[in-house]
Amino acid sequence: MQHNPTLPLRAGDVLARGVCRHLLSHNFVSVTELVPTRGLRVDVMALGPKGEIWIIECKSSREDFTSDQKWQGYLEWCDRYFWGVDEAFPTDLLPDETGLIIADGYDAEIIRMPDEVRLAGARRKAMVQKFARHAALRAHAARDPAATQ
Amino acid sequence: MQHNPTLPLRAGDVLARGVCRHLLSHNFVSVTELVPTRGLRVDVMALGPKGEIWIIECKSSREDFTSDQKWQGYLEWCDRYFWGVDEAFPTDLLPDETGLIIADGYDAEIIRMPDEVRLAGARRKAMVQKFARHAALRAHAARDPAATQ
Repeated sequence: MQHNPTLPLRAGDVLARGVCRHLLSHNFVSVTELVPTRGLRVDVMALGPKGEIWIIECKSSREDFTSDQKWQGYLEWCDRYFWGVDEAFPTDLLPDETGLIIADGYDAEIIRMPDEVRLAGARRKAMVQKFARHAALRAHAARDPAATQ
Repeated sequence: MQHNPTLPLRAGDVLARGVCRHLLSHNFVSVTELVPTRGLRVDVMALGPKGEIWIIECKSSREDFTSDQKWQGYLEWCDRYFWGVDEAFPTDLLPDETGLIIADGYDAEIIRMPDEVRLAGARRKAMVQKFARHAALRAHAARDPAATQ
């Protein structure tokens, strides 16, 4: 779903906005709400200049984090995995081996860069293509709303 | 440049809109105005479900076609190359080996499917990634206009 501009952003979407802006300053482009495989939907997937794939899950509160039963399922779909949280988030909850981005609605900062666990070539190829199709559909919907309904 | 919605579409952009809608019915997603290499800018680049890359140049008149000195340069950046023109266009001007799509602003039809000349693997990989980054930037600008200025 495209965000309906008449509705206020949810807390996680605000964080995602700051995260995506910051990623762009690292030359990583991004999409939101991509489905890498059935049953998983990532908050932010980013694509780097050399084809790197990062996933960033945005958590607005302790409860938002502790209720997430699926996050470990995301690890196999990216080279690096991050949490995107605000300054008030209790970051000691987060596993040390995951990345950490502190965000607000306007910008963000990468606090902890996780080790890279590189995708196999075939999966990377499939994910870049999935990313491309997802992004193109969003862009198409934006330039011609009648096309994709 | 994103289209400024306060300006009327140019004739070529109207054709591109119909072309992109029709391509979607074939499960090809598309972007506009992608630059495959310095000095070239394609009207429509489409990405198929198996990674196929098509280029469609939209021509609104005989003059628009005859003044295009660059189109043969597009052939090496796609698997199939098409012209997108309206019903009134003198299609006998167009080389037989190129594809033909007749379009208006609302839809289109593939009249002649050109032979496929498949991209080499490395170039396809690079083009899918370029397509992904282009589409993601457009989608990002749509969801957060402040991010990409």
